[in-house]
Amino acid sequence: MDDNYLLSKPYLLNSEDLTSDDINAIFAKAKYFLGNYTKGAKFHDLRGITLALAFFEPSTRTKLSFELAAKRLMADTISFASSGSSLSKGESLIDTLRTIEAMGVQMYVVRHGNSGVPKFLQENTKGVVLNAGDGKHEHPTQALLDSFTLYRHFGQVEGLKVCILGDILHSRVARSNINVLKTSGAEVMLFSPGTLLPRYMNAWDLPIASSIEEAVEWADVLLVLRLQRERMESGVLPSIREFSKYFGVSLEHFSKKPELVLMHPGPVNYGVELDYRVSSFPNCLIQTQVTHGVFVRMALLSLLAKFV
Amino acid sequence: MDDNYLLSKPYLLNSEDLTSDDINAIFAKAKYFLGNYTKGAKFHDLRGITLALAFFEPSTRTKLSFELAAKRLMADTISFASSGSSLSKGESLIDTLRTIEAMGVQMYVVRHGNSGVPKFLQENTKGVVLNAGDGKHEHPTQALLDSFTLYRHFGQVEGLKVCILGDILHSRVARSNINVLKTSGAEVMLFSPGTLLPRYMNAWDLPIASSIEEAVEWADVLLVLRLQRERMESGVLPSIREFSKYFGVSLEHFSKKPELVLMHPGPVNYGVELDYRVSSFPNCLIQTQVTHGVFVRMALLSLLAKFV
Amino acid sequence: MDDNYLLSKPYLLNSEDLTSDDINAIFAKAKYFLGNYTKGAKFHDLRGITLALAFFEPSTRTKLSFELAAKRLMADTISFASSGSSLSKGESLIDTLRTIEAMGVQMYVVRHGNSGVPKFLQENTKGVVLNAGDGKHEHPTQALLDSFTLYRHFGQVEGLKVCILGDILHSRVARSNINVLKTSGAEVMLFSPGTLLPRYMNAWDLPIASSIEEAVEWADVLLVLRLQRERMESGVLPSIREFSKYFGVSLEHFSKKPELVLMHPGPVNYGVELDYRVSSFPNCLIQTQVTHGVFVRMALLSLLAKFV
Repeated sequence: MDDNYLLSKPYLLNSEDLTSDDINAIFAKAKYFLGNYTKGAKFHDLRGITLALAFFEPSTRTKLSFELAAKRLMADTISFASSGSSLSKGESLIDTLRTIEAMGVQMYVVRHGNSGVPKFLQENTKGVVLNAGDGKHEHPTQALLDSFTLYRHFGQVEGLKVCILGDILHSRVARSNINVLKTSGAEVMLFSPGTLLPRYMNAWDLPIASSIEEAVEWADVLLVLRLQRERMESGVLPSIREFSKYFGVSLEHFSKKPELVLMHPGPVNYGVELDYRVSSFPNCLIQTQVTHGVFVRMALLSLLAKFV
Repeated sequence: MDDNYLLSKPYLLNSEDLTSDDINAIFAKAKYFLGNYTKGAKFHDLRGITLALAFFEPSTRTKLSFELAAKRLMADTISFASSGSSLSKGESLIDTLRTIEAMGVQMYVVRHGNSGVPKFLQENTKGVVLNAGDGKHEHPTQALLDSFTLYRHFGQVEGLKVCILGDILHSRVARSNINVLKTSGAEVMLFSPGTLLPRYMNAWDLPIASSIEEAVEWADVLLVLRLQRERMESGVLPSIREFSKYFGVSLEHFSKKPELVLMHPGPVNYGVELDYRVSSFPNCLIQTQVTHGVFVRMALLSLLAKFV
Repeated sequence: MDDNYLLSKPYLLNSEDLTSDDINAIFAKAKYFLGNYTKGAKFHDLRGITLALAFFEPSTRTKLSFELAAKRLMADTISFASSGSSLSKGESLIDTLRTIEAMGVQMYVVRHGNSGVPKFLQENTKGVVLNAGDGKHEHPTQALLDSFTLYRHFGQVEGLKVCILGDILHSRVARSNINVLKTSGAEVMLFSPGTLLPRYMNAWDLPIASSIEEAVEWADVLLVLRLQRERMESGVLPSIREFSKYFGVSLEHFSKKPELVLMHPGPVNYGVELDYRVSSFPNCLIQTQVTHGVFVRMALLSLLAKFV
């Protein structure tokens, strides 16, 4: 690991911000934290740095993951959201940011329901902004922890065949994963009901599976997306039962191909996109993804702290 | 104090989990923390351990008490509840627990409105679960701090006569106290309106006072329960005034017997189960209970951390 | 700086609690923290002290400012508010305070919608209470950070001409600033629509400007208050447009007098009491006020901790 490596951008807004070298540096650092934390090592990479967790959308796993990552690196952290804050007095987001910056906050982890909010904030602060999920746009740290999980499981990401299944259209996870996987040299295939495929598909130029059987046969890895409840009720899908029958992943698919690896960003709708029994399958890496999430976020915070 | 003592169970779900030796070990440790904290000592018993405060019911005193206890032992703590978390996205409790566990959380302090939730979680995690109150079932740390308060006041719990007064039927505090007091060799009597006595009374085989005068005469200690507002409005009681007249504790009772000790788990409904003037009575230990609560919880966290 | 200086009162409830010597001691300490924090120094002034942040009104900036101040001095902090706490079970404020005190909390930062709550709490605790804003009564730390900002900008506060503009009637910021500025020897003028001037004006005996032009000509500093939205809708003002035209501060006023200094406690209603373009004016100190807020609160916490 080269301790002097600088990420190519002093923030993380989109998965396209990351070069192949950036991804390798993040993985090397995450591996270092993973190995040494379990041995009881202490890290001080963010000592003296004040970090704000600004989550304007409900979140358990991503918020806790960043919070634990920041605390394990000795950051001073503050949390705020729109409810109970001055935003309910009608203050604009940008004025709130400037106020927080004036108090000495240097790093911001931002989740927001509107696409582009992290970019907008980055353009208006001298601090470092990390996108923790913005609207239907991007969720780059999720993509990084997914790829790190593949890197740890297979030894490398290059050449892997990854099929992303489910609601591609509304998924920031899909968008970020496609970019990070392609940058790392993986092959990506999609499988989705036609109404849940984005219209701008051509820009990606990715193969589309015509059946789940084809996806299973082709892939080394199935990356299953969460089906948002709102989607089920909005008319783009005939019924949950039908979605589950034609697009859900069942135990049967894994019985035919035991080496197949399963990932899901969580929280899972068991019985909808995934059969519950699959969760105890040995190559189901859903828990491992969560564990790796903390270390990948530690790596990112540590590398981005060099720009503070 | 034997520093190698191991509690008989690697969790605390029910008051029945505690043997007499366990209780003695907890009291010895709590006494140690109490004595040394006030001298300015620092403790590191939970350094490097990540603890989750999972309070699914509103709480001031119990949550703050555990939070302070954990911080004074240098734990990394995270808080979460159902609102604002992924539970609002329909994720099951058990999946949330597994996610949090995958992030490296090793101890859980759980309060939930449904009886049995802490037990259910314990059966599904490798971490250590502490019950901070579950439905109408148990509140074992309250019982421990109550007994610790008696132990400090009287020198021993064995042989003490404790009368529990009020809404026994709906009280997790009563249930846990009866077990801990009996394990420690105290005698227990109950006093309650007939509609607020549990039907399974026979299992406890405890004497019932027929009037508050009888209770006062018999007891060394009155442990007065909080009358839940819902109860007052539900028809099981004729009126607050009548409850207060026949079942409330007044200054008069203490004037007759100044050595009588008064405890209450709080928050008190003054004017309902207790006369406000009683709170300044010298043997009223309500504030002492709160103070001891932090040290008893430190003791428990420290002893249970050996199982992490 | 005299390290043995003791504030004249062991709390901060009202701006009148502060003598001229107190203010000088707070400024000297704040200047010390400001200079040394940016050099990377660590402070331990509140190590071992437990501080409660009790905010019963929504707040971003004041709460975060106190939280950062307390953390940078190594305090153990706990937060609580009425929602989600036992106050929703009907417990009185004073019983909640006593409970928290029994857990070992020694300092309280209190914001409440009702005037006088901090004073009421101070009279019922052995701990140290800081008023972080109570109803329409006082907001003394805001006044201190405003004066500290003037002290840093001009070298001294004595003799400065400060005009306070806007909704004087409902403003705890105005009330506290008038006292602190007068104690420090500044001259104060007011400018406000007649319906937003307090009836007890005579007690202050302050000059009133008859137009914004007069205010600009007279003043070294304009301290513009936030116009509460409720006020705009309540009929005391004809329309926002009219308020903005006759009582709002525009770029034009600063073009005529570039040395004029602008302050505002935030959050600003741009387009109402202040033209947005004014915020980039070099003598606009709004961000500086926020930055100084953290250091002034550190100074106060440090000086008040001597009474713990």
